[in-house]
Amino acid sequence: MRTITDIKEMQNYSKEQKRNRKIIAFVPTMGNLHAGHISLVKTAKRKCDILVVSLFVNPTQFGAGEDFDSYPRIFKEDIIKLEREGVDIIFYPSEKEMYENSKTSVYVDEYSSILCGISRPSHFRGVTTVVAKLFNIVKPDIVLFGEKDAQQAFIIRKMVKDLNFDITIETREIIRESNGLAMSSRNSYLTDIQRKQASHIYKSLIGAKDLIRNGERDIENIKNYICKIIKDSGIEKIEYIEIVDDNNFNLIDSINGSVRILIAIYVGKTRLIDNIKVDV
Amino acid sequence: MRTITDIKEMQNYSKEQKRNRKIIAFVPTMGNLHAGHISLVKTAKRKCDILVVSLFVNPTQFGAGEDFDSYPRIFKEDIIKLEREGVDIIFYPSEKEMYENSKTSVYVDEYSSILCGISRPSHFRGVTTVVAKLFNIVKPDIVLFGEKDAQQAFIIRKMVKDLNFDITIETREIIRESNGLAMSSRNSYLTDIQRKQASHIYKSLIGAKDLIRNGERDIENIKNYICKIIKDSGIEKIEYIEIVDDNNFNLIDSINGSVRILIAIYVGKTRLIDNIKVDV
Repeated sequence: MRTITDIKEMQNYSKEQKRNRKIIAFVPTMGNLHAGHISLVKTAKRKCDILVVSLFVNPTQFGAGEDFDSYPRIFKEDIIKLEREGVDIIFYPSEKEMYENSKTSVYVDEYSSILCGISRPSHFRGVTTVVAKLFNIVKPDIVLFGEKDAQQAFIIRKMVKDLNFDITIETREIIRESNGLAMSSRNSYLTDIQRKQASHIYKSLIGAKDLIRNGERDIENIKNYICKIIKDSGIEKIEYIEIVDDNNFNLIDSINGSVRILIAIYVGKTRLIDNIKVDV
Repeated sequence: MRTITDIKEMQNYSKEQKRNRKIIAFVPTMGNLHAGHISLVKTAKRKCDILVVSLFVNPTQFGAGEDFDSYPRIFKEDIIKLEREGVDIIFYPSEKEMYENSKTSVYVDEYSSILCGISRPSHFRGVTTVVAKLFNIVKPDIVLFGEKDAQQAFIIRKMVKDLNFDITIETREIIRESNGLAMSSRNSYLTDIQRKQASHIYKSLIGAKDLIRNGERDIENIKNYICKIIKDSGIEKIEYIEIVDDNNFNLIDSINGSVRILIAIYVGKTRLIDNIKVDV
């Protein structure tokens, strides 16, 4: 396994691999790897000749007052985990090299200002911009994202289609802790009590899925059901509970076809998101 | 020579060429080719194994009330000219395939809202977005742009650097008609009298260059000198006369180092731009 920090070196490496007809898979991460990331890495490994994982805590996707400074950075531990998975290249650039005097951004309109985009208005612009940069640097054929960030995955697919990146985007289902809590780097901020409270997010989603499977079609009834379970757990701040058409991420009036329920809440000061797909 | 209209077919062609270690040069155009374009094509031809020219009148870089509908489309004549130059591939996509349901844009902040960006606020967003798309479709190693659109060339270089496109951008000097008028597709809108008036744009730039070479350093004096020559020619509407540092496109207070004088005027209803570089 080799660690590359220089953008030009990464590009030249990938260019040479592609000339040799190698398939490059890529898993972009902000480090602090958990079982969710490792699941993506394992899947990616089976699909390629060369596996690249990036470790870069991207400043432009954090808003003012968010946890950029305190975001866990344990790159040495991350590297050990990645070596174990047979990763070929770790791309680990500096913030300076990525953003010095940068004025350019990539923006996916409409989908970046709903759901998480309401409370985090600059977040998805930061995500799409850094992902476009990483695509141009790593030159992957296949890129894997986790479904926990379902809106992010949808927006990246849209960017790839709209800007004609010649890349296949694949997503993998959420990996959960034993109590159902979706794996997240931010789970490390939680106390034991908070972790127990947070486990009710998934319980509410599973319950809602059952409700729908049993015939419930009213959006408000489903949201109220979820809201009650979450509030009863002691979680006080719900940012949103929304249901979208999973094919186009439009908010829907009634359940029909493939839908996705998405939740963002705060446990204490820690913001957590989760979602579940329901096919009707 | 082969004409490709399908995005995926173009990508697959370029992918295969790159696997075979071919160097791809690319000249993006909106068609209606003149000697300026052909000069770029000839230069590009010498630098590559495979030469791709795109013909696409890009709707998103025209503002409301601009000349998108009347923009000259003479693709059959263009294709004959390109075949003569040994072009390998003409990429000629439909508007529908390029933009159907597109929500994504690429924007270079600061530099897109000055000079031409003042009267054409959405123009450069349209340019950078379509150029990013074409880069991802054609996968060029080298791309050539004309210096007549100096601000465009600067912005594209900035986009390439900021988004890490692994592409070399080269520019070539303005090709002029015998009376000095910069070659432009829009010159076809001019009457004989207007064409004579428009020839004074270049005369004013040459005169200003001489002024600077003879020691003039005051920006206002230089602008007033240009303004007088243009007004005396009978041209009534000057959009801007500006002088920037050629290295960073910042407006400057005094002449120092490499500068560029840029002009936008209207002859009748036809908007024309021109510029000249002056090294002090």
